[in-house]
Amino acid sequence: MVKTTLPLLAVCAALQACAQHQTVTPVVHRPPADIIKTAKPREWRTLDPNNTLVMTIKGMEVVLELAPRFAPLHAANIRTLFHEGYFNHSAVIRVHDNYVTQWGVPADESATGKETARSTGSAQSKLPMEFTIAANDLKLTPLRDADGWAAQSGFIDGFPVALDPAEDKAWLPHCYGMVGAGRDSAPDSSTGTSLYVVIGQSPRHLDRNITVVGRIIKGMEALSALPRGSGALGFYEKPSQYIPIPSASLLADLPANKRPQLEVMRTDSASFKELLESRRHATNPWFVRSPEYSNVCNISVPMRVVEHPKK
Amino acid sequence: MVKTTLPLLAVCAALQACAQHQTVTPVVHRPPADIIKTAKPREWRTLDPNNTLVMTIKGMEVVLELAPRFAPLHAANIRTLFHEGYFNHSAVIRVHDNYVTQWGVPADESATGKETARSTGSAQSKLPMEFTIAANDLKLTPLRDADGWAAQSGFIDGFPVALDPAEDKAWLPHCYGMVGAGRDSAPDSSTGTSLYVVIGQSPRHLDRNITVVGRIIKGMEALSALPRGSGALGFYEKPSQYIPIPSASLLADLPANKRPQLEVMRTDSASFKELLESRRHATNPWFVRSPEYSNVCNISVPMRVVEHPKK
Repeated sequence: MVKTTLPLLAVCAALQACAQHQTVTPVVHRPPADIIKTAKPREWRTLDPNNTLVMTIKGMEVVLELAPRFAPLHAANIRTLFHEGYFNHSAVIRVHDNYVTQWGVPADESATGKETARSTGSAQSKLPMEFTIAANDLKLTPLRDADGWAAQSGFIDGFPVALDPAEDKAWLPHCYGMVGAGRDSAPDSSTGTSLYVVIGQSPRHLDRNITVVGRIIKGMEALSALPRGSGALGFYEKPSQYIPIPSASLLADLPANKRPQLEVMRTDSASFKELLESRRHATNPWFVRSPEYSNVCNISVPMRVVEHPKK
Repeated sequence: MVKTTLPLLAVCAALQACAQHQTVTPVVHRPPADIIKTAKPREWRTLDPNNTLVMTIKGMEVVLELAPRFAPLHAANIRTLFHEGYFNHSAVIRVHDNYVTQWGVPADESATGKETARSTGSAQSKLPMEFTIAANDLKLTPLRDADGWAAQSGFIDGFPVALDPAEDKAWLPHCYGMVGAGRDSAPDSSTGTSLYVVIGQSPRHLDRNITVVGRIIKGMEALSALPRGSGALGFYEKPSQYIPIPSASLLADLPANKRPQLEVMRTDSASFKELLESRRHATNPWFVRSPEYSNVCNISVPMRVVEHPKK
């Protein structure tokens, strides 16, 4: 347990008690594990079945939560694609070390077991780019520190957020586990038929250049531990190297007993706010020096598996 | 190609010609690939055979360059351990997703094929911690931008460096691919018999808390694409899950025809300095917005395989 004395003003703001009581005690930062353990039931939320995707890759369950606040049209299109089965028997076609894993329906479908042309069904074939949204009305849980890539950052809806108040823009940063919609040269050429996830150091130079659609909640290792592709940009060179994705469903379309029972900590909860402060400090006695700093891409939003589904 | 107009002062400093010629042309940033392609032979260096380690993991060649400037005693000890064969038939025992892969001689050697007790030979059994060195005399190639984790950063000897001039301290930051010496609770309990490499978002909170000893130059995918361990902290739970490291040598001990022929771009070269500036900008027309920023952990030092060894 590390005790840290904050400047008087910050402690007063946190305690809202300094006007009455002029005695300030040092702030004690609880370890993240303790904060997670004692979080109240109302500080956790279940996943919206219409906003959650479930894939199977190498026998592992991968759960992706969409971010409709930031990319409403892409989220709706991807929901349609999963609901109508477009991603069943799709494949991972690219794994670029320290960068991204990308999946979709390969041009050569010989490895997916499908031989008929793949239809995108009722999904839109053209979407606008959704790189940023208005920032100034967002009720973020803010980070105390800036990181160089953005003027401010924080969390909302369970997602990391970067923002520039001067430009009134907010966006989902390319942190580990964040999912985007692949595009060609034209900025508005993504539709959600090709998705990628960050598997290395956050490539924040991609921020505001492509539509980020969500985050992997569970099963990252099914995407991060795959063999790297030997082709340009990490693409697999032969269809036989593709990693099959035999099933890919909208959570709402799965029978109740097949749904992963997960809860995510609410990022507007008191426990998450305490976690953000705790992450700035080294609370484990193994550390000899506390960073007194944190970065939006170094903080994971807690997730837990619920043993007994709620009624 | 993206043309960017720098403030007049910066352009004058770069061109050293403004006093004579008041006409300033916009700075054109060449793409990184062009810079690497046109770098002169003297801007590349070969690896010091006494400072380079070569391991085989899953049939892939992994090359590690030590950083004796930052951790001279650990580098010397690790050199001895590799020279005397300590790491032959060692194993990867831990893969923690978005964090580190760790290897060494497992307590249970049943999976390594060795049945005799492993001796550390003439290596030291106790070393001081080597977390930082003096900063103020370092001739860094500086980065223009700060990143929040350190007051300044840059490169030297082919390594990323973070530093705090006020404290006169410099250290190797925990970027993707950086290698450290595992330790127990005591800060001075590392000897180099257990090594780890960063395989995810840079865990910079570890900076200045553990001795960083070098960097993976080639073969990161042999360490980053391994199955994640299901035990606490990502340790493999069963010896049968260990990933064997059948051979691990000091480069100097390999016959000439078995040595990987690699060159690394000199980080004090004009080409590398140009690369650092280029990395701040989006030079590829795919981008609609240039970050005008870079982070020491987002920049890779170029490496190339030399087809024909030099005489």
